[in-house]
Amino acid sequence: MDPARSVLLTDLYQLTMLQGYFEQRMDERAAFEFFVRNLPAGRNFLMAAGLAQALDYLEHLRFMPEELDWLNRSGRFTPAFIDYLAEFRFRGDVFAMPEGTLFFTDEPILRVVAPLPQAQLVESRLINLLHFQTVIASKAARCVLAAPNKLLVDFGFRRAHGAEAGLLAARATYLAGFGGSSTVLAGPMYDVPVFGTMAHSFVQAHEDELTAFDHFASAQPDNVVLLIDTYDTEAAAAKVVELAPRLRERGIAIKAVRLDSGDLVDHAKRVRAILDRGGLTETGIFSSGSLDEYELQRLLNAGAPIDGFGVGTRLDTSADAPYLDCAYKMVEYGGEPRMKLSEGKITWPGRKQVYRRYDDAGEMVGDTLALETDDCAGEPLLSQVMRNGRQTRPKESLSEVRDRAQRRLAALPEPLRDIAKPGSYPVEIAPGLVLLRQRLSERLRRH
Amino acid sequence: MDPARSVLLTDLYQLTMLQGYFEQRMDERAAFEFFVRNLPAGRNFLMAAGLAQALDYLEHLRFMPEELDWLNRSGRFTPAFIDYLAEFRFRGDVFAMPEGTLFFTDEPILRVVAPLPQAQLVESRLINLLHFQTVIASKAARCVLAAPNKLLVDFGFRRAHGAEAGLLAARATYLAGFGGSSTVLAGPMYDVPVFGTMAHSFVQAHEDELTAFDHFASAQPDNVVLLIDTYDTEAAAAKVVELAPRLRERGIAIKAVRLDSGDLVDHAKRVRAILDRGGLTETGIFSSGSLDEYELQRLLNAGAPIDGFGVGTRLDTSADAPYLDCAYKMVEYGGEPRMKLSEGKITWPGRKQVYRRYDDAGEMVGDTLALETDDCAGEPLLSQVMRNGRQTRPKESLSEVRDRAQRRLAALPEPLRDIAKPGSYPVEIAPGLVLLRQRLSERLRRH
Repeated sequence: MDPARSVLLTDLYQLTMLQGYFEQRMDERAAFEFFVRNLPAGRNFLMAAGLAQALDYLEHLRFMPEELDWLNRSGRFTPAFIDYLAEFRFRGDVFAMPEGTLFFTDEPILRVVAPLPQAQLVESRLINLLHFQTVIASKAARCVLAAPNKLLVDFGFRRAHGAEAGLLAARATYLAGFGGSSTVLAGPMYDVPVFGTMAHSFVQAHEDELTAFDHFASAQPDNVVLLIDTYDTEAAAAKVVELAPRLRERGIAIKAVRLDSGDLVDHAKRVRAILDRGGLTETGIFSSGSLDEYELQRLLNAGAPIDGFGVGTRLDTSADAPYLDCAYKMVEYGGEPRMKLSEGKITWPGRKQVYRRYDDAGEMVGDTLALETDDCAGEPLLSQVMRNGRQTRPKESLSEVRDRAQRRLAALPEPLRDIAKPGSYPVEIAPGLVLLRQRLSERLRRH
Repeated sequence: MDPARSVLLTDLYQLTMLQGYFEQRMDERAAFEFFVRNLPAGRNFLMAAGLAQALDYLEHLRFMPEELDWLNRSGRFTPAFIDYLAEFRFRGDVFAMPEGTLFFTDEPILRVVAPLPQAQLVESRLINLLHFQTVIASKAARCVLAAPNKLLVDFGFRRAHGAEAGLLAARATYLAGFGGSSTVLAGPMYDVPVFGTMAHSFVQAHEDELTAFDHFASAQPDNVVLLIDTYDTEAAAAKVVELAPRLRERGIAIKAVRLDSGDLVDHAKRVRAILDRGGLTETGIFSSGSLDEYELQRLLNAGAPIDGFGVGTRLDTSADAPYLDCAYKMVEYGGEPRMKLSEGKITWPGRKQVYRRYDDAGEMVGDTLALETDDCAGEPLLSQVMRNGRQTRPKESLSEVRDRAQRRLAALPEPLRDIAKPGSYPVEIAPGLVLLRQRLSERLRRH
């Protein structure tokens, strides 16, 4: 069985609380919202991602016999509760921003409305799925802003945090505008275009570099990208020039060379000159090695003649901001708005909507965070995506999501597009919501 | 099918290279070693972890019919190569440091010796498995050093990078000395003890906090840990004191209260006083919320009377060092030592062994990185764990691994135990290895 699909992929406290709800027959409808409390340093916006996996999870959630057995044997739960879990399904409603939507502090990107135990149990895995892809899509979007019109390829699987992280990073980076990923399984699983070149070991395994290049070109005649930094980058570029006519006779073109170490600006300039002098003006330069949006910007500003980039570890781990201060919080129960007052973590009560306003050129100018029942100007960003546990819309293809994400990025105001400077975006809180929080917190403090 | 077990969980270049090796009939034995190039800032040592999953992966690696179909349809590979992949198995030998071993820059923790295509294909997933658990075990070991004799529980699943990251983080933190995890599935999958309390939503769903506490205690009478910061921490502590006698009549003891926000030192001191005055001297204080080794040390140095800690996001993402500069590099092919000269990434050629020396008190005093064939003083850290694709030893239980990790941590020299100060550890390079690298790099530069 696929552990990633197990309902036990949750925190134990969800189950201990459920036992409490079960005994007290607390199953009125509850609303929970997922939002980010603060944007990390170095992020002017976030890009929502992970909804497809979240909805898939909710639709298929159930306890398998061996899982019930294990819970039973743990001695923590009553037999009646275990029987109840055997029939447990998610039958709630979900409202969400579509994947690829840009969002800001305190704006919910997803709301679950369901009988309390259902809305509660799913917290851990919902956060796990939405958080990670949002982290990665947001980082990838910054790479796209830093290197517009360049081919960007996700190279991060090996240092991603496990299997699912690697696969979902391939999905989230493509969604945010990358050209594809080196992770093969992301092809069949998510329709992400897959890219591959060669590693140093291929060169090392041969007695000489030229033979290695020749062998690789013979084996992959339609996709000849040669790694040239194993020993001496410029010497290898000269060997590429030497090899090219022999390959041309066999109908093989050298698509690109790859640089993976050293000063990439210097090497790219020298290699470009060597290739051009050798008549290989159509052979591109692809580069990798410790890249992220800051390094992409630096390379391009320095005039490095690089056509494409493999971006790996720092992207797939979102190294400068590997997590978000996000939460999935109860905002309503039994028809009454709810909040918590915990220091530094006060929440906005009630079911909320985000309205976004644009100027005539289609650029975003400001959002309003309001109660769902308020009537505000602008485009409402959340809409219903699940009813009674069933998705309300046909599944989108990932390339459709990607197109929308590109339109969303195009509407981003100029100051927020700068990857190096903090820029802020106006998110107003509607008066009705301010008033509700004030009244509710006074009432709770009196208790 | 479980995607985490798919052989397509690899980089495309492994397969394009394999097609080249296949066509050239390059299948002599190769040796590859996994090591870390540089320790990240804030790490005086690393703890090896992930070997069990790595060996399991190697033992079960094969191409499934639907995977071969997909590769065939991709149009990148020849039919003869696809047929070859259908029979592909890992039949190599593996040498490794046991999980829980402490290690340093350039020291291989694993060596694969196998026909070249076998040793090559497994690179991506081997790195993915060894890297992540090593990152997490190393971070968790620092938490253990910062809070000795305290109960530490992994709370990080929700912001771990996906399902496998959450599960393997539960495993790696327990291995490194944590008491357990809140991730339920880590129980049945890895025999990690599972812990759970309650969330704010449980309190919020009730009309008043006291009733919420009462209901939770009734549902989980053997494990009453009450979260007291939803509205007003000290007021809630007073309610706990009020509730205690009524629960005692029903034979229920309040094991602990949990703090999750605000100034934890202040709150813990005030709550301790309230509980003690109310006669609840046996009720512990458990704390969570943005913790890591630095914060654990700060809290304990400030005298916070806290008995246990839930450590989450910053641990499971290893927030201050979310990745390692690690590599899996070819060191030998066809009986000849190999290396690369890429700038800043020169490798040590040949099959290597790490020898560790101890003083009379059992404390580590220095390591030697040497060729396997050298004869050095000290304990050799790598030994054979797989022969011809089969594990050579019975599987260890995770608690055995954990015991070994604790013994290894106990042997760590004092300067390296300081989580706040950089400390260095002597790793000598044996003369034979220095000489080999010198000779080989001269030969390669002449080429």
